[in-house]
Amino acid sequence: MKRRLVWIMLSAALAATSAVSVMAAETGSVIVSKTEGVADTVYGKVRGFIDEGTYTFRGIPYAKAERFQMPEAPDAWEDVLNCLVYGPTAPITKMTSPDGGDFLIPHRYWAQNENCQNLNIWTQSLDPEAKKPVMVWFHGGGFTNGSAIEGVAYDGKNLSEYGDVVVVTVNHRLNVLGYLDLSQYGEEYQYSGNAGIGDLVASLKWVQENIANFGGDPENVTIFGQSGGGRKVMSMMMTPEAEGLFDRAVVQSTNTSYQTQDAAQLVAAYTLENLGLTGDQVDELKDVPYDTLDAAASEAQKRVKEELGTGGSWVPVIDGDYLPAAPLDGGLQEWTNDVPLMIGSTFGESNSFSEVDPNTVNKNDWTEEEVSAKLEEKFGEKAENVLAAFRQAWPEKKDANAYYVDDSKRRAAFQVVDKRIESGADANYIYLVSYEPPIEGGVSLWHCGEIPFVFHNMDLLGVGASYGNTPEAYKLQDEMCSAWVNFARTGDPNGENVPAWSTYTADHEATMVFDAESGERVSFDKELQDLMKK
Amino acid sequence: MKRRLVWIMLSAALAATSAVSVMAAETGSVIVSKTEGVADTVYGKVRGFIDEGTYTFRGIPYAKAERFQMPEAPDAWEDVLNCLVYGPTAPITKMTSPDGGDFLIPHRYWAQNENCQNLNIWTQSLDPEAKKPVMVWFHGGGFTNGSAIEGVAYDGKNLSEYGDVVVVTVNHRLNVLGYLDLSQYGEEYQYSGNAGIGDLVASLKWVQENIANFGGDPENVTIFGQSGGGRKVMSMMMTPEAEGLFDRAVVQSTNTSYQTQDAAQLVAAYTLENLGLTGDQVDELKDVPYDTLDAAASEAQKRVKEELGTGGSWVPVIDGDYLPAAPLDGGLQEWTNDVPLMIGSTFGESNSFSEVDPNTVNKNDWTEEEVSAKLEEKFGEKAENVLAAFRQAWPEKKDANAYYVDDSKRRAAFQVVDKRIESGADANYIYLVSYEPPIEGGVSLWHCGEIPFVFHNMDLLGVGASYGNTPEAYKLQDEMCSAWVNFARTGDPNGENVPAWSTYTADHEATMVFDAESGERVSFDKELQDLMKK
Repeated sequence: MKRRLVWIMLSAALAATSAVSVMAAETGSVIVSKTEGVADTVYGKVRGFIDEGTYTFRGIPYAKAERFQMPEAPDAWEDVLNCLVYGPTAPITKMTSPDGGDFLIPHRYWAQNENCQNLNIWTQSLDPEAKKPVMVWFHGGGFTNGSAIEGVAYDGKNLSEYGDVVVVTVNHRLNVLGYLDLSQYGEEYQYSGNAGIGDLVASLKWVQENIANFGGDPENVTIFGQSGGGRKVMSMMMTPEAEGLFDRAVVQSTNTSYQTQDAAQLVAAYTLENLGLTGDQVDELKDVPYDTLDAAASEAQKRVKEELGTGGSWVPVIDGDYLPAAPLDGGLQEWTNDVPLMIGSTFGESNSFSEVDPNTVNKNDWTEEEVSAKLEEKFGEKAENVLAAFRQAWPEKKDANAYYVDDSKRRAAFQVVDKRIESGADANYIYLVSYEPPIEGGVSLWHCGEIPFVFHNMDLLGVGASYGNTPEAYKLQDEMCSAWVNFARTGDPNGENVPAWSTYTADHEATMVFDAESGERVSFDKELQDLMKK
Repeated sequence: MKRRLVWIMLSAALAATSAVSVMAAETGSVIVSKTEGVADTVYGKVRGFIDEGTYTFRGIPYAKAERFQMPEAPDAWEDVLNCLVYGPTAPITKMTSPDGGDFLIPHRYWAQNENCQNLNIWTQSLDPEAKKPVMVWFHGGGFTNGSAIEGVAYDGKNLSEYGDVVVVTVNHRLNVLGYLDLSQYGEEYQYSGNAGIGDLVASLKWVQENIANFGGDPENVTIFGQSGGGRKVMSMMMTPEAEGLFDRAVVQSTNTSYQTQDAAQLVAAYTLENLGLTGDQVDELKDVPYDTLDAAASEAQKRVKEELGTGGSWVPVIDGDYLPAAPLDGGLQEWTNDVPLMIGSTFGESNSFSEVDPNTVNKNDWTEEEVSAKLEEKFGEKAENVLAAFRQAWPEKKDANAYYVDDSKRRAAFQVVDKRIESGADANYIYLVSYEPPIEGGVSLWHCGEIPFVFHNMDLLGVGASYGNTPEAYKLQDEMCSAWVNFARTGDPNGENVPAWSTYTADHEATMVFDAESGERVSFDKELQDLMKK
């Protein structure tokens, strides 16, 4: 991290202290100063900036790691480390084509570096006695892509301000750097298949050690994440290493897939083969440039997928040790029975962005016959029954929406909660976001579509504010953000702005449906979901 | 461009037309629809979106090109091309460390692809009779880095809205893809050393052909650019190919350096050598992956710099043909005598970002003795005279600022204007932006610091709004944006919001000084600038 080194060097000449600099403000104020916005960590002081009252720290190092090794504590530093600019994000495969979905989900890309163990903090106080709830965000993008800042909607300022919470977002290793299982080639590589998970654990350890100095309560830490990030949250519930590091969990829009160690080791074997290396030469992998390594490993993934019919993507490894078992195979650690869980999905998880392309046929224009044809195409013989069940579950939605209704992420939510209930965990809250942004007459909310509501970031989306910029959307962000914040504060989402929301039990299968009119519904789409099962 | 192909394929099933979708708005409205925001181009229809009344088109292809070849007209398409998401930007060397300056100059990174000939448009009208002034922005980053969207401040919406102008920003080839001079290896490579300049010419041809359909006046086109972008503007004034393609020019904060063909050809020779290729194998360069090519060429640049003492960076090639001569060697085309020019710089062009690091000594804290020591360190024997001249030129500034005053970009402005006057061009306006953002008591305005004022984008900078968010900063963006817009409209920056501003002549060496209090000053820093010359 060149930048930091330079600044640390310069600071050797640091003058004692001088007048605090405060910038007068018309529309907002930003303070960067010698004395304000400086916090202690175990490893040294960090300087953030104060953005309209929100203390903001970017790119604080929480760990360091050699390639394929578990992380260690970061090196300590002298003087004050400037944390005004985001730290590097984890390397990902080079992107050569823009993502067409960027119009709906604005992205932010950044410098990438293997030394990516850094986190960002937004907080309303630096008082160690403030003890505000802490919300730690694990980003999505599977375990392959994304970063703590990829989503414009991941910016923590509004959530911190609206909820008076400490928001932390985490960069950590991904793909081949995070999940290549080299354990068969030597003890030093024992945990390489879960190095990325190790980073996440390290980030939570850092939070335990340091967050009080950022106004946070280390005894009230909520981890939340979406898509791959949701599975990262689950992974923390699955590893003994994370015991005691968090108190509540939110799993948004994900599945329960993990990798067997056999498949993971086969990927590693083919990766070596693709690079012309034998198992004895495994150490040479440490020096292979990332792009070369990534390409070789991606080819290996494809081959394993072809041969085994499973795998084919980067996922943590069920090694019986760091991750003892998959979540539906008893993998959720027993101590997580005391960790309240919120889990849910969006209405149209699998909705491709083509639905909002005005060039394509708009579902809202479909005739009755066209709806029937589409449903038959998708559900075959079951089409009529699916439509009947859909109408029962969603009387207020157009028939055409039946084509887009998600059954995979929602089913995963039920499965995880069933397992928890079986194991004795009773604080389980299930939600479903069915709000339809009013584009082209209404679009089923897509994968990632709930994130700006959770972060209270409607205003940050710019033109991607295709979410509506409607009064309904603004009301919904108050409701959803309040539910998340209430849950972080007490382990129960109920409270101001949030309609009454029961825990999900065998006797009362409650789902909070977030929409233009939000409210709890009980067993309302059971028949539909059952019908849609393969 | 996968995204486009997919959408075009889907559109084969396009329904006739359906209800126009309009999104109700609380804080703003965004319209994406089948019928609104669709414009004709010579190559096919394009769909943008309407963002609070501003028609916005992203990633319109204006050309296509083989590697090392001059661009050709883009392929035509059927149906409507969705231009809702930015097009790919030109490949640049991989960035592994964040830029510490991002706090002051927020950046945006994006998918990179050699097929990067695309442009973005913001306009208030799609009426072919509207004939609004057109402002085409060439981005900075030398000829090596950057993109049409790298600077958050490059967003054209506010400029289009405030000035009622059509704003165009252009992606084009950079570095080894734009400026590797292979002319010695075959006629087909004759112009490879200026392929990037060819892209810019192609973008202006596209504007001539198409901009009327976006409400623009093809007979009133202003090109403007900063740093490398300023030299791109100058390059248009130097090539016979650009005659008739623009009407006014704005050159912001650049120098006048170009590359000799000898040096450029040596870079090409060493690039081949580094790749183990002979001149006969030049065609193989077409298939070398970008990263490999870039690395080989960067090494070649370094070697040429060592051997010749010049070169060492990507710059257009003075080949006596596409670019007949360097700007100070009579290279400005005679027809540009009829092109009014605005040219200028910022006070602290060479100010490194360390000045705003609270860890470092702040110039505003220096004692009189420390100021003297710093000036002696920089100016040696001339230090006292420099300080006296500085005080005369800038009576309102602290002595310490003398350490940061720019003499290179400002001198280049004088040199270019002197050449123009010699050649008979009389519409020359020189400016200098000396506003000091109130960080740590005041910072000399850095390289790039004027851009948000020109684009009226104070509000877009987020926390990088370290520019001040002060009433003075908001007044200044009105003044500067108005000056740029007036100039685009009439060739004269004078008008509403802008203090009286004379052309620069031998008898009246006028500079518009933009600051908290802006105004014209005459010959005011001549002695200082003369003293600072080597």
